[in-house]
Amino acid sequence: MISGKNYIGNERSSNGDVQFKTRNPKTGAENPVLFFEASNSEMEEAVEKAHHAFRSYRNTSLKERAAFIQQIAEEIESLGDALIEMYCAESGLPEGRAANEKGRTVGQLRSFAAMLQQGDFLGDVIQKGSEHPCDLRKTQIPIGPVVVFGASNFPLAFSTAGGDTASALAAGCPVIVKGHPMHAGTGEMIAEAVVRAVQKCHLPDGVFSNLNSQGIEVGVQLVQHPKVKAVGFTGSLAAGKALQQLAQERKVPIPVFAEMGSINPVILSEAALQQNGKHWAEQLAASVALGTGQFCTKPGLLVAVSGDSLEVFKEQLTQKLNAASPGCMLHANIKNTYEQHKQLALQQAGVETLTASAPAPLNDANQCLAVTEGSAFLANPQLHEEVFGPYSLLVACDNAEEMMQVIDQLEGQLTGTIIAEPDEEPWVAKIVEALIYKVGRIIYNGVPTGVDVSKAMHHGGPFPATTHAKYTSVGLDAVQRWLRPISYQNFPTAVLPDHLR
Amino acid sequence: MISGKNYIGNERSSNGDVQFKTRNPKTGAENPVLFFEASNSEMEEAVEKAHHAFRSYRNTSLKERAAFIQQIAEEIESLGDALIEMYCAESGLPEGRAANEKGRTVGQLRSFAAMLQQGDFLGDVIQKGSEHPCDLRKTQIPIGPVVVFGASNFPLAFSTAGGDTASALAAGCPVIVKGHPMHAGTGEMIAEAVVRAVQKCHLPDGVFSNLNSQGIEVGVQLVQHPKVKAVGFTGSLAAGKALQQLAQERKVPIPVFAEMGSINPVILSEAALQQNGKHWAEQLAASVALGTGQFCTKPGLLVAVSGDSLEVFKEQLTQKLNAASPGCMLHANIKNTYEQHKQLALQQAGVETLTASAPAPLNDANQCLAVTEGSAFLANPQLHEEVFGPYSLLVACDNAEEMMQVIDQLEGQLTGTIIAEPDEEPWVAKIVEALIYKVGRIIYNGVPTGVDVSKAMHHGGPFPATTHAKYTSVGLDAVQRWLRPISYQNFPTAVLPDHLR
Repeated sequence: MISGKNYIGNERSSNGDVQFKTRNPKTGAENPVLFFEASNSEMEEAVEKAHHAFRSYRNTSLKERAAFIQQIAEEIESLGDALIEMYCAESGLPEGRAANEKGRTVGQLRSFAAMLQQGDFLGDVIQKGSEHPCDLRKTQIPIGPVVVFGASNFPLAFSTAGGDTASALAAGCPVIVKGHPMHAGTGEMIAEAVVRAVQKCHLPDGVFSNLNSQGIEVGVQLVQHPKVKAVGFTGSLAAGKALQQLAQERKVPIPVFAEMGSINPVILSEAALQQNGKHWAEQLAASVALGTGQFCTKPGLLVAVSGDSLEVFKEQLTQKLNAASPGCMLHANIKNTYEQHKQLALQQAGVETLTASAPAPLNDANQCLAVTEGSAFLANPQLHEEVFGPYSLLVACDNAEEMMQVIDQLEGQLTGTIIAEPDEEPWVAKIVEALIYKVGRIIYNGVPTGVDVSKAMHHGGPFPATTHAKYTSVGLDAVQRWLRPISYQNFPTAVLPDHLR
Repeated sequence: MISGKNYIGNERSSNGDVQFKTRNPKTGAENPVLFFEASNSEMEEAVEKAHHAFRSYRNTSLKERAAFIQQIAEEIESLGDALIEMYCAESGLPEGRAANEKGRTVGQLRSFAAMLQQGDFLGDVIQKGSEHPCDLRKTQIPIGPVVVFGASNFPLAFSTAGGDTASALAAGCPVIVKGHPMHAGTGEMIAEAVVRAVQKCHLPDGVFSNLNSQGIEVGVQLVQHPKVKAVGFTGSLAAGKALQQLAQERKVPIPVFAEMGSINPVILSEAALQQNGKHWAEQLAASVALGTGQFCTKPGLLVAVSGDSLEVFKEQLTQKLNAASPGCMLHANIKNTYEQHKQLALQQAGVETLTASAPAPLNDANQCLAVTEGSAFLANPQLHEEVFGPYSLLVACDNAEEMMQVIDQLEGQLTGTIIAEPDEEPWVAKIVEALIYKVGRIIYNGVPTGVDVSKAMHHGGPFPATTHAKYTSVGLDAVQRWLRPISYQNFPTAVLPDHLR
């Protein structure tokens, strides 16, 4: 069933020389299918097809687009167990996670379809000539072909037909996916589902393409291509920055909406540690270990004031993390990077490792908790860097003032969390006031992992969390990245789009 | 009354070594006041004050901010004739224009005050925990100190307390103005008005600063300063691109909202030329000559199909432009640049000058119309470049197909205009379909100069018209540039901002 080929629009193609296979991280063995990296001519053809498809796709009605996206959801659902098997074989993630992520992906698609049915996301403003000096009507139009980079850690929800693709198609933009090489088989299955939906809905060939690539070349060429108008990316800070730079160096720069690194600070009050320390140790240990720590919202920094309560909490958290089984990481490269970045953090002056290092086979990784003092954290930017995997750093501050200094020195983050007791509202308000200017989402007495896909969600944040703090990559407002305003001045009704009449 | 000093927050300061004067472009003579360029330490202090002021200014209520912005409007009105005199002496623009622009500036401020009173611009989304899996409430917060570059061609409406400043102050961001050296006196008068409003409203010292500079150094340092969070700019493509690059090269990149060049194509139908050619020749000649062509929406490109009607129109337009008196440009530098860019355009192969070159004293400039064929325009990117001043290029296309090619080859524009007869709606629809993907505002049977300052206005467009096609620098939505979203998850009511409760 899986061909290993690229989808150049609706056509399967494999005219390139480079081939690769995915691996099962649980066994280390190669998966059977041979994938063909997209050649330069295939990349060119995909962009040309997208460019031409845009001319008709941009004029589809919102209802037509809703039906298309609905159809993608149905096609994905009809893939059944085969998709789950492929997902697990390529990611090492458990079946339950695969099923959840499939549910979320299908749910995302359906929520964009519902948004299109409702039709109020364009932000239309109508200023009638009968009441104003001029007749002015503002709406939004799609910006053109979008390139979506698949994310290693979400083979479904942030990849081939994930949130970036769903929101761009909803906006009226053709999508060219640069699939993640670690789960090319999952990608092809989803791409096939999308292509079936394109055909069933009689949409133009080229509204969707899926390109395989193991290296960086295909991605670089796509970002540089004059007919590509925007980029969606979820991944590392280094890769996000590189894409942003390429996009800025173009003759006509384009936006790169990159969601990059975050350490997701959690600020704990002394009272919460004292009265509910065990509960929070359990919650946070589970959040750090979830998905083997491979979430962009993993709590990578825990901040509290030193004292007896913190000592007890520290032990409880260490115990919980030691007791958790090692988890399989997505790929040998990711496991190796985790170990390197973790070791770099643990080697810093004043950093003490709290968890034990049990033997972990192949690509499994141990949960790791380290501790340092507030002064050490303040003095060492290396400790502010994300360690992607099940690692967290506890910062023990001398006092409340030092805790505020730590917050003030934080870089931009996707999330910030405050853990407190009900009678601490003045303290909570003070932390909120400092923390909101650093984060895109702030959480009270919860954990940052797990995002609600809704209109009220903001999954973004100041640099380096993202390249554009104004935008979210999760939830309905993700569509806003692929639209731009236009004002119609004094036009006869017949020429205006229906919704502006 | 005018001191020539900088306003570092509420304090007048002049500790730098560099001094300069403005000139009256009508006489060529220097105006009397000596201005002190901001020193490095003054620049640093202005940013530090803005950084500290932000901590309290961001927490002012929307009503407090409305009162402040209202007060600025009143203080500007109370400047009376002295402001108009200074404006004219520094810009060479006529009194009528000065009065109009003052009215617009005050009107803009009042419309932002009204927006704050109404309070719905934050786009709040409330998802209650009682009805959803989690309680999630999204709003927007100000991003921090903003640097505003004064524009040469709008000493009031796009400068010290113009649209960028008004919208940033409305958002809750302190503003540091890098004043335009050509109208430093006008800038100081306005700055004084703003500082009086800061004091009367008991707002923190540093919520507004005004820095003088003749060279580029102060601007460069401001854009590079780590405590500056965004930039608003209106000016040339070269300067806008340079600021954008500086901002991207920072350790933490920041957005530069630059409104840059545009040639504002006008597409004329054969029927319109035939039936109303004289009317449109009058309208377009007036639009090209308005403000001596020194508008970013000046129609710099007229596109029509060759034929008898176009020949008649060409003559009528040439006559009208020849009959218009030369206008005084803003500065000798601007006049010189106009002449250079105009000559460069006129020297291109296949370009013929239609207007006569009457003697124009000092900084006065003649209106200029040139003509070329569609094929020459398509073959020569130089002809696509803006000539800032009262110049326009008429492109005579062989046929309707070539006209479509010209439209398809256009770069991003602030505006596009279609001139047609009432029975030509199918043709108009076809041009709209091609033109909207190039422009931010599309106009039917009108001229692009003159913007309505309202919620329905979009004054922006794809690169190179602006750096961020999503945003407008005119109208109420200009405030969106200085805000970013944040989601509050599961917070107790008492800790939420009032409007999210």
